[in-house]
Amino acid sequence: MRRVYQGQPAARGSALGRARVVHTHPLQIREEHIPQADVPDELARLRSAIGVVRGEMAALREKLQDSLTPEVRDLIDVHTLVLDDLELLRGLKSLVQDELCSADYALRLQRDRVAAAFAAMDDAYLRGRMEDIDQVILRIHTALHQRDAETAGAAGDILVSPSVAPADLAKLPSQGVLGIVSVSGSAYSHSAILARSLHLPMVSGSAEALADINDGDVLIVDGDSGAIIVEPSASDLRQHRTKAREEQRERKALQKLRRERTRTRDDHDIELWINAETREDIATGHMLGANGVGLYRTEFLFLQRDEVPDEEEQFLAYRDAVLGMAGRPVTIRTLDIGADKADRTGLALPDEPNPALGVRGIRLSLRRPDLFDDQLRAILRASAYGPVRILLPMVSSREEIKAVRLRVKRLHGELSKTHTAIREEVPLGAMIEVPSAALSMSRWIGLVDFVSIGTNDLVQYLLAADRGNDALDDLYTPLHPAVLRVLADIIRTARLRGRPVAMCGEFAADPMFAPLLLTLGLEQFSMHSSSLLEVRKAIRACSFEARRAMLPQLLRLQDRAAILDWLHATAAMD
Amino acid sequence: MRRVYQGQPAARGSALGRARVVHTHPLQIREEHIPQADVPDELARLRSAIGVVRGEMAALREKLQDSLTPEVRDLIDVHTLVLDDLELLRGLKSLVQDELCSADYALRLQRDRVAAAFAAMDDAYLRGRMEDIDQVILRIHTALHQRDAETAGAAGDILVSPSVAPADLAKLPSQGVLGIVSVSGSAYSHSAILARSLHLPMVSGSAEALADINDGDVLIVDGDSGAIIVEPSASDLRQHRTKAREEQRERKALQKLRRERTRTRDDHDIELWINAETREDIATGHMLGANGVGLYRTEFLFLQRDEVPDEEEQFLAYRDAVLGMAGRPVTIRTLDIGADKADRTGLALPDEPNPALGVRGIRLSLRRPDLFDDQLRAILRASAYGPVRILLPMVSSREEIKAVRLRVKRLHGELSKTHTAIREEVPLGAMIEVPSAALSMSRWIGLVDFVSIGTNDLVQYLLAADRGNDALDDLYTPLHPAVLRVLADIIRTARLRGRPVAMCGEFAADPMFAPLLLTLGLEQFSMHSSSLLEVRKAIRACSFEARRAMLPQLLRLQDRAAILDWLHATAAMD
Repeated sequence: MRRVYQGQPAARGSALGRARVVHTHPLQIREEHIPQADVPDELARLRSAIGVVRGEMAALREKLQDSLTPEVRDLIDVHTLVLDDLELLRGLKSLVQDELCSADYALRLQRDRVAAAFAAMDDAYLRGRMEDIDQVILRIHTALHQRDAETAGAAGDILVSPSVAPADLAKLPSQGVLGIVSVSGSAYSHSAILARSLHLPMVSGSAEALADINDGDVLIVDGDSGAIIVEPSASDLRQHRTKAREEQRERKALQKLRRERTRTRDDHDIELWINAETREDIATGHMLGANGVGLYRTEFLFLQRDEVPDEEEQFLAYRDAVLGMAGRPVTIRTLDIGADKADRTGLALPDEPNPALGVRGIRLSLRRPDLFDDQLRAILRASAYGPVRILLPMVSSREEIKAVRLRVKRLHGELSKTHTAIREEVPLGAMIEVPSAALSMSRWIGLVDFVSIGTNDLVQYLLAADRGNDALDDLYTPLHPAVLRVLADIIRTARLRGRPVAMCGEFAADPMFAPLLLTLGLEQFSMHSSSLLEVRKAIRACSFEARRAMLPQLLRLQDRAAILDWLHATAAMD
Repeated sequence: MRRVYQGQPAARGSALGRARVVHTHPLQIREEHIPQADVPDELARLRSAIGVVRGEMAALREKLQDSLTPEVRDLIDVHTLVLDDLELLRGLKSLVQDELCSADYALRLQRDRVAAAFAAMDDAYLRGRMEDIDQVILRIHTALHQRDAETAGAAGDILVSPSVAPADLAKLPSQGVLGIVSVSGSAYSHSAILARSLHLPMVSGSAEALADINDGDVLIVDGDSGAIIVEPSASDLRQHRTKAREEQRERKALQKLRRERTRTRDDHDIELWINAETREDIATGHMLGANGVGLYRTEFLFLQRDEVPDEEEQFLAYRDAVLGMAGRPVTIRTLDIGADKADRTGLALPDEPNPALGVRGIRLSLRRPDLFDDQLRAILRASAYGPVRILLPMVSSREEIKAVRLRVKRLHGELSKTHTAIREEVPLGAMIEVPSAALSMSRWIGLVDFVSIGTNDLVQYLLAADRGNDALDDLYTPLHPAVLRVLADIIRTARLRGRPVAMCGEFAADPMFAPLLLTLGLEQFSMHSSSLLEVRKAIRACSFEARRAMLPQLLRLQDRAAILDWLHATAAMD
């Protein structure tokens, strides 16, 4: 039966596909049956999951045996008993084998049966133990889906999951996944940012839809309106097709802007740079007439491998990027990695309780001079092939920039003796993403040649709200008076001191906010090439001088609602 | 043999005692023997630790069995083999039983024996496996000390440990521990803050000392100079005694200030409030003439228990605090708890990758209205017994304050019908600790009656440096131009808008910084009562007007070094 749910639009576009439900809460699992042929596999999944949970319990029991109160020990024992209860296992097996239930559905049915038996008990204590059973069932369910999550997504699927980790999300397009429905993740969550850059339609925020969608249901996900249509009608499908054609037409129309300038209505030229990582990013950016690479990330060279790339390997990658831009500057950001990626590098990073506030970016580089020198040398050598700029992430104080300046100068001197083609001038710049750097800019701007505002982190620190924490989606937003004030200050200070200032966070890639950023005085935007034409189009619709005149008004706004109102109210004023 | 090491002074005072070494790296363990009578206990410790590690390995193996590469599986298998190697176990047993080695020393000896055998091998691959053995030994060692850490510290001990968690540190005085030597933890680490408030001398930063001190060594720890003297000479002991007497004299002299006013040399009155939690804190604060409780923490009611305290229990605690201050205001901060304390409450908090940037403080309260209402009702009811103020932690935007205002108003109305003694006016205030709140203060200050600056968190967010992360001790400091600028702005805005502004972070409790804070215009300091007299003394040595005149100079300083220089240079100018 056709059902429509309303969520929050998180990434534009419309997708039609089959639901691939990952990791639903067990008590919300709906009836689901499997073909006879799948029974052995399904039983194996279940057995393996139970094995995992049994192992977890044994380890817990052993680890805590001497240090815990008898109450907690009892609890663990009860859990182990539940797990070892032959009735439970036999019940599950029979449900899969004889009634062709999926492992998940069998878990839910068996849970309900036990619950009914418990509810009938006279003893209040025993009735209370149902909670333990639920906890064990939940553990088994989690274990069942630990493997699933890795293989989630096949061609034609729409992923339906309470939350999608950015790392998982990045793999979806190559698996042919067409769209995403999640409960968490606002338009400013990391996942939504990624979904937009991958052109994956995404709707978030409908827990109701998630509870109600089953694996295999046909869905339409509309990332523009936030609608999720389950089992769409013929008319829904027609509308979807019309919409899809329209989107295609829009994309084609946008392509005409490829050869146009990024110039406001009052003939003010704005620079569009690209954030790049791959060869394709750079080729596309060059083709679209980007002014340069505003942010070349170097992390990809260090991730998913056990050893650290040496100077030569880095040099070759940077040289290729420089050659790919054919004379336009490439801004290479030095390694921006922290403890959150500890398990994916050969850097031997220690665990940290708050990796976002930890040893990352320039902090790590200054603590690992051997690594840092390799990287700086590789960048300097690449300058022989075209204009290169060095960009430092996570700068928080003047002292750090001074330390890097000296280091670059020394390495430049050393290299110039043997590599004659290295440029005299390799500009050095700082990311502004730590509040203390933003608020003390006049103290250090004289030490750098340019700056780039990293709004993703800057907003996270200003609001003390983890941008990867889905529970804070309502708090994490650049549309806060304090954020706008800091951005306006940064841009004004940079102009006063004659330093170019770009913005390379997601804020700059969203065409909706281009008018606001022009109002703040921004003249260099850097973004993934997939957003470039849309931002160009938005900027061409604005008048720079009219926007600049609105700044005092913008900076007087009280709160987010007022800022959103202002955005809408001024949309027609260019 | 007498040895002297130099570390960083972290908490003042001098202590003489026996070293209690916790969790040293096994390869640095020195010779250590046990009495015959302890052999059974020592063997039991060892067995239990090996059991824990075996459980960990089994769980790991089972959990990963289907999802990991053969290489990693092999590694785990090798570790399990090492652990099951009878030679290893027999060797350890014999070392303890026959040679009366401590479990730690036996681990190190056995490790060295195996290493010697491996080194003699021809096969490079096998030689490489020594690393696996070391990893297993390290795991056993860690398991050995997981239990120790809980019981660490007895009367007369000086705790020697790579790092001391604040939670463990808080228990030390009741165990009779006299001082602390740690590798990590600057004077601004959370642990050092706690050590100072507990009057526990602490020296940090000497890895060399740690590696060289053995359980039972006699030590002198000098928290003023940072010196650690192992096996002190008779002359050292004499000096220590002289110093201890001097400290006592100073403390006595300080007591004379108990009845004095906190008035600057130019007759400007400054308010000193206290941060309190216990009945004793409040009694002391009242006795020292504190202007009130500037920060009454309520977390202690929620920690170390499985259920949440109800309205009645909270009311009784708050009422006692109010009665204890006998008419002076008590500022009750609503619950300030987050995911970092998830395992110590009955609140069922979810794990978060960055708890410091997560759902904590007012964010949690607004998401748990049942809890929040209980707390607000308890506070309002306590107002019948004396002046009470409500203080909101982790405010980041105007919207949050508006939401709380409405809620308090509704509850006040409801309660007033049944509890006639509730005050008409219960002032509502906000902590300023999130940068966005500081930087948008003019937008929301009209909604509150007072503000309190929480420098500990404010500095952490402004610098994006976790204050609990020891690797960032060199970055985490309030002596940053951006921090001073933000503090000056907050204080100026509050004065302009007629709102009292206090500072309740550790910055306000350090007599060294009192002149700087007066320069910024601060007139209300809040701190643990143990610092009150020292801060009073420091303030009485300053001239408020002379300090205020130095503000423009202070705000022009470039970096931390310049700020420290300024502090020293202006010390004699009052």
